[in-house]
Amino acid sequence: MKTIVPFKRVGAKSRLSDLLTSVEREEFALRMLCDVLIALSGSLVDEVEILSTGGAEELMDDLRGTLSEDLALMGMDIEVMVDMKPLNDALNGVIARCEQPVLIMMADIPLVTPESINAMVERSEDIVVSPGRKGGTNALLIRKPSLFSVSYYGLSCIEHLNRARECNMTSAIHDSFFMSVDIDEADDLVEVLIHGEHTYSARYLNDIGLHLHADKESKTRVEVERWI
Amino acid sequence: MKTIVPFKRVGAKSRLSDLLTSVEREEFALRMLCDVLIALSGSLVDEVEILSTGGAEELMDDLRGTLSEDLALMGMDIEVMVDMKPLNDALNGVIARCEQPVLIMMADIPLVTPESINAMVERSEDIVVSPGRKGGTNALLIRKPSLFSVSYYGLSCIEHLNRARECNMTSAIHDSFFMSVDIDEADDLVEVLIHGEHTYSARYLNDIGLHLHADKESKTRVEVERWI
Repeated sequence: MKTIVPFKRVGAKSRLSDLLTSVEREEFALRMLCDVLIALSGSLVDEVEILSTGGAEELMDDLRGTLSEDLALMGMDIEVMVDMKPLNDALNGVIARCEQPVLIMMADIPLVTPESINAMVERSEDIVVSPGRKGGTNALLIRKPSLFSVSYYGLSCIEHLNRARECNMTSAIHDSFFMSVDIDEADDLVEVLIHGEHTYSARYLNDIGLHLHADKESKTRVEVERWI
Repeated sequence: MKTIVPFKRVGAKSRLSDLLTSVEREEFALRMLCDVLIALSGSLVDEVEILSTGGAEELMDDLRGTLSEDLALMGMDIEVMVDMKPLNDALNGVIARCEQPVLIMMADIPLVTPESINAMVERSEDIVVSPGRKGGTNALLIRKPSLFSVSYYGLSCIEHLNRARECNMTSAIHDSFFMSVDIDEADDLVEVLIHGEHTYSARYLNDIGLHLHADKESKTRVEVERWI
């Protein structure tokens, strides 16, 4: 199965700017992409196309630099396609030419696991949506991509299920916590630090001084703090 | 399999007080409990013990009133035990006397599905934790309850996995988005309104005038609003 991973590095993750500098946000975006690639390589997916808004050669160099031996061990075709168009236009341009089933996976879900990817791609429905919080679509399996179009942003999870119905396609929701955790805000980093011990993303956050802080006064409050 | 569902009604869900009155919060807590019971009744679970801080007869009456025919259709033993002790003390008192495997499930996860419950109870590990956001434990499967003790609040997900290790028990994390959505804050209600069309909880929120509002200016902002 082929997977398309849209990736934007320049100006990535602006809502993390209270905690991370712009250089750190770009580095962190690369680490999250690495974690997604590692999870894909452990799954049934055998081919990845990274749809990048930046230079292809530079991104491949950076992936080689960060992943080093892990990249060789992956045994998965990775290709970078450069596309400067807005997300929906870029994706719809690509899937219009796909004759085989395709999985679209966001690059900011570093906790995603091979098991969850496999459970998703093994489903039999025409369209399978893996939701993020607030109605987003963090992964989307499309059996007949040339007959479908995507619509990200807003309540895209509902939008994709509605489109499936309009196209007379069967659909399902894939129920995965680790796929639902897309990293946009400081509170999302809490999840990476709690569950991501094995990830490039958590190691990077630790390296730049981010750590969990549990408020002793409150029974439930857990936050991310930064050593000055 | 037996399931224990701790339930607190009086003063429930105080962090929703900007949107719901105290009477509405108590009503909503009851609706969420009903959704959890419905999901359990569709799963392999055949026995539920509600561990309540309030009167048993009154709660059973209210469940009958809200669930009406659904309750009879459940075909599941439901018992209410009153226990005024703090959550951990109450639960540890109960599981110390359990000789059979037990599932502890929070009452504020109205999106939980029978499929996810079954996938959880069919796992082979001694301890299975289903995390909520920020390190909580929304469901906990314990094979040998009399040899374990629970510790809710804070990073309980990590705490329960650590305790399993200390007890030489095997453990796993159950990866479910719908189980991860516990309802504490206004933002959590967004998930109920997006995914919970079939639930008592979403119907109740609709009845009292709550609805989703997608900000046209922002590509991603979705909130819950209330008709005045």
